[in-house]
Amino acid sequence: MTRPTLRLYELVLANGRSASPYVWRVRYALAHKGLAFDSVPLGFTEIHTFFAGRFKTLPVIADGATMLAESWVIVDYLDQRYPEKPLFAGAADHAAIRLLDAWLSFEVLRRMLRIYVLDVHDAARPEDRSYFRQSREARFKMTLEAYTADRGERLSRLREALMPLRMQLRQSPFLGGTAPSYADYIALGAFQWIGSVSSLPALAKDDTLLREWLDRGFDLYDGLGRDARLRPLFE
Amino acid sequence: MTRPTLRLYELVLANGRSASPYVWRVRYALAHKGLAFDSVPLGFTEIHTFFAGRFKTLPVIADGATMLAESWVIVDYLDQRYPEKPLFAGAADHAAIRLLDAWLSFEVLRRMLRIYVLDVHDAARPEDRSYFRQSREARFKMTLEAYTADRGERLSRLREALMPLRMQLRQSPFLGGTAPSYADYIALGAFQWIGSVSSLPALAKDDTLLREWLDRGFDLYDGLGRDARLRPLFE
Repeated sequence: MTRPTLRLYELVLANGRSASPYVWRVRYALAHKGLAFDSVPLGFTEIHTFFAGRFKTLPVIADGATMLAESWVIVDYLDQRYPEKPLFAGAADHAAIRLLDAWLSFEVLRRMLRIYVLDVHDAARPEDRSYFRQSREARFKMTLEAYTADRGERLSRLREALMPLRMQLRQSPFLGGTAPSYADYIALGAFQWIGSVSSLPALAKDDTLLREWLDRGFDLYDGLGRDARLRPLFE
Repeated sequence: MTRPTLRLYELVLANGRSASPYVWRVRYALAHKGLAFDSVPLGFTEIHTFFAGRFKTLPVIADGATMLAESWVIVDYLDQRYPEKPLFAGAADHAAIRLLDAWLSFEVLRRMLRIYVLDVHDAARPEDRSYFRQSREARFKMTLEAYTADRGERLSRLREALMPLRMQLRQSPFLGGTAPSYADYIALGAFQWIGSVSSLPALAKDDTLLREWLDRGFDLYDGLGRDARLRPLFE
């Protein structure tokens, strides 16, 4: 049985790493399901032209003639089209993890952006930086430097906001229990994102619960998350 | 087939309402599973003596000779002993909702306590108030009045912390999707708790997503959450 090889369009940094928490959760989802794919790296400025305006954000996935954007749309498609090794145990599980994603976006990713957006700029391909700066500064209504000025103080609130993860990891090795679930992939993706750009370690040395979970998570699928280009996540 | 009737030991206020978010999630779990029970109301000062020191917190459930405390222990027991109408779709779903509970405890219940603990005191049975005050003031290292002094300002952070619920309710009528799940029962329990004591409406008039979800949730199981003694949750 042959099928067209999946293509994953990924947001790429100057060093070749994928720079999006949403791309990373899809990378983990594909690995979970054992689906091979070809990677197509695109810089921030290439997305609009490449897709002729059809998609504005990555990840995008192509499966034959099917092209889809938005990580939730993509993983739902993958689970429906390739039902083996499902990412979700059913509708209630899907809803619970979707609510976890809402929490993580609201309390964690927002704080990470406020701390690391200038680092993303600095790690972007040189030809993408001016567009990246202009588009983000228009949204934030201030310079990236002003937006991240007090990031040292914001770090403590970020660490505090991660407390629910630690509470869970006191109970089980993965957020999903004894085995990783899409909740793990969402959270691991956030750390892959900031680890790709960080000039300020996000976590305290003695944050053992998160350290051990990140070690387990980065080791998954033959060390999918391991990369010599990753910057330190711990002080 | 007969079985011993379940007994639920509940924390009771002066007006006879159950005053604990943890009791309320178990009440919803029992209703979800269609399990009848006898209610045994206990005041704050009665728990220690009643259980001869064995249990310090409510809910406690008795099923024949089996007696259990802690809401997660109780619902796990119920799902194992009475497998019909399960509360969880499997281990991953269970873990996801447990992580949601960690989030809700950390970002929402903690803030509710800081706003409503003096209201809980005032709504407690007269004979429980002095014990309630002493035990909580020892924990907070300040008077209940000082602990809740700036609760007006804290209200806006509580409302903000509820944003992930609204994000989810844009997608589906219940937190659990098209049908309520234990995630709904946990969150509904928090509102039953503060609604039982509140002298300050928690939510803004125009918080339509939460208002409609609370209406749907309080209507569940023949209006289990409906009660003329409930105080206004909305401004």
